[in-house]
Amino acid sequence: MTNDPYVSRRSAKLATMVRQDPVVYSTWSERSPLTLEQVTSYERDGFLVLKGIFSPDEVAGLRTEAARLEAGSQELEAETTITEPGSGAIRSVFRIHKQNSVFARLVADARLSKVAEFLLGDDVYIHQSRLNLKQGFHGEDFYWHSDFETWHVEDGMPRMRALSMSVLLTENTPLNGPTMFIPGSHKIYVSCVGETPDDHYKQSLKKQEYGVPDEESLSQLAKDGIAMPTGPAGTVVIFECNTMHGSNSNITPYPRWNGFFVFNAVSNKLRAPFGPAKPRPEIIAARSAVETIVPVAGPLFQAAA
Amino acid sequence: MTNDPYVSRRSAKLATMVRQDPVVYSTWSERSPLTLEQVTSYERDGFLVLKGIFSPDEVAGLRTEAARLEAGSQELEAETTITEPGSGAIRSVFRIHKQNSVFARLVADARLSKVAEFLLGDDVYIHQSRLNLKQGFHGEDFYWHSDFETWHVEDGMPRMRALSMSVLLTENTPLNGPTMFIPGSHKIYVSCVGETPDDHYKQSLKKQEYGVPDEESLSQLAKDGIAMPTGPAGTVVIFECNTMHGSNSNITPYPRWNGFFVFNAVSNKLRAPFGPAKPRPEIIAARSAVETIVPVAGPLFQAAA
Repeated sequence: MTNDPYVSRRSAKLATMVRQDPVVYSTWSERSPLTLEQVTSYERDGFLVLKGIFSPDEVAGLRTEAARLEAGSQELEAETTITEPGSGAIRSVFRIHKQNSVFARLVADARLSKVAEFLLGDDVYIHQSRLNLKQGFHGEDFYWHSDFETWHVEDGMPRMRALSMSVLLTENTPLNGPTMFIPGSHKIYVSCVGETPDDHYKQSLKKQEYGVPDEESLSQLAKDGIAMPTGPAGTVVIFECNTMHGSNSNITPYPRWNGFFVFNAVSNKLRAPFGPAKPRPEIIAARSAVETIVPVAGPLFQAAA
Repeated sequence: MTNDPYVSRRSAKLATMVRQDPVVYSTWSERSPLTLEQVTSYERDGFLVLKGIFSPDEVAGLRTEAARLEAGSQELEAETTITEPGSGAIRSVFRIHKQNSVFARLVADARLSKVAEFLLGDDVYIHQSRLNLKQGFHGEDFYWHSDFETWHVEDGMPRMRALSMSVLLTENTPLNGPTMFIPGSHKIYVSCVGETPDDHYKQSLKKQEYGVPDEESLSQLAKDGIAMPTGPAGTVVIFECNTMHGSNSNITPYPRWNGFFVFNAVSNKLRAPFGPAKPRPEIIAARSAVETIVPVAGPLFQAAA
């Protein structure tokens, strides 16, 4: 892998490198699914917040479905559910878009998928999907990380041509530990120290320990500030695969639920991992079970007769 | 202790009780050190934020002294310093007002001590003082608690006639895990389940495990919202001894430093603890080494000649 521009976890030496890939892969026009201002902001900051994308009825429908699943559903594959350390409550359901028709419809929704196609300049598929149902009181923090660093090293994603969308199902406020982003950090690649052990993902889903950027690089990246987007349920937060992000814990009674979807360009499908020999399982990083998304227009739910 | 109105940690049964004590012990007049609006707000919410109390020069002087101590000072008694789990960095210095002339002057400052005397309707002394030097990146969360519950059970503080003042030495923003308060919670006493082990304080300073209120009571208290006061260095946050408060973790690079001082009414001095037989040490809860504060007017630092 001598040509790998994004080497990480290969040595005890820290390094930061300049991004080698575009951020926005399409040229804006009047017919683009985002405004020019939105595209410019995403290109500069590495994230974008879209409020009011889904109607209150659509949000209510998504929440009802999420609550039904959270109450304990026999229809979910056991290995796709992650429980909160301590309480045992369901915290995440992986591959939700393959297990549930409501969330399958959501990821295909043109208001999401057309935006992903535009920003990535390609057809897209879902690299990872999750329903996050973090409860209040004991929501743990999640340390700073670039998703791409992990996806590259552990999953074999070749280039920075992927993005995540978080569809908020509960309100994000400064109180309940929402995701924070370091604006502009997507233009720098921070390689991490050390090697990745096999089966690392089993721990890392609960608590990140490898692939951790160093404090000096983080301080440097954050010298102009850190953003903490907030918004009501129905807000969509889009962020670039290399944007440094993390979250503080949440001791408030307020839960944090969202649907979380990683769109990858079909031209950027996974190869052999750049780090450990054994790739992570399909539920975390789609490798063979890959379907190009066909965008679906119109409301998420059919109106009752 | 059959007459104790604030029994806690005595049974496996939860209970919430109505506060039996005043919140503000003086009657407001034109000569009071707070405005009527400020007193009304403190009485209703259980906390009050005072911005711009200390001048930029005073703040700079306090920070310089704090930084000097943080760098490692031989003049501090070893048992008064608490280090961060993991990194070993100094996180708190207890009894700072007895070990350092700058902080001794700060607690006596009329802008603090006169306000404490007014709200508590009595002469006052320092029950506990701390210099908190929480660093960024790994600042841990602190779960919801009423200070009075602990001071009553573990220290033998008879009644709710004490308050805390936090003098911010760094900016508090929504990002760096500032203290959150549940407005109005000071009017309810939430007793906690279970008994207190001896020497509990050794753990509880790092991670609270006993004296923890239940989630149902917290949800009920917080049904009208949670406050997260923010402000620049030099801001003073005052909160009543029974106000439920806590903080999320802080993964940002931004530190959170403050001087933290608990003023107690001299008529409310400690008795034997209501819980465990063995009281906590003097550095955490002043019992014999108690001096009535004599307020000092004027700037914290003498101007250079």
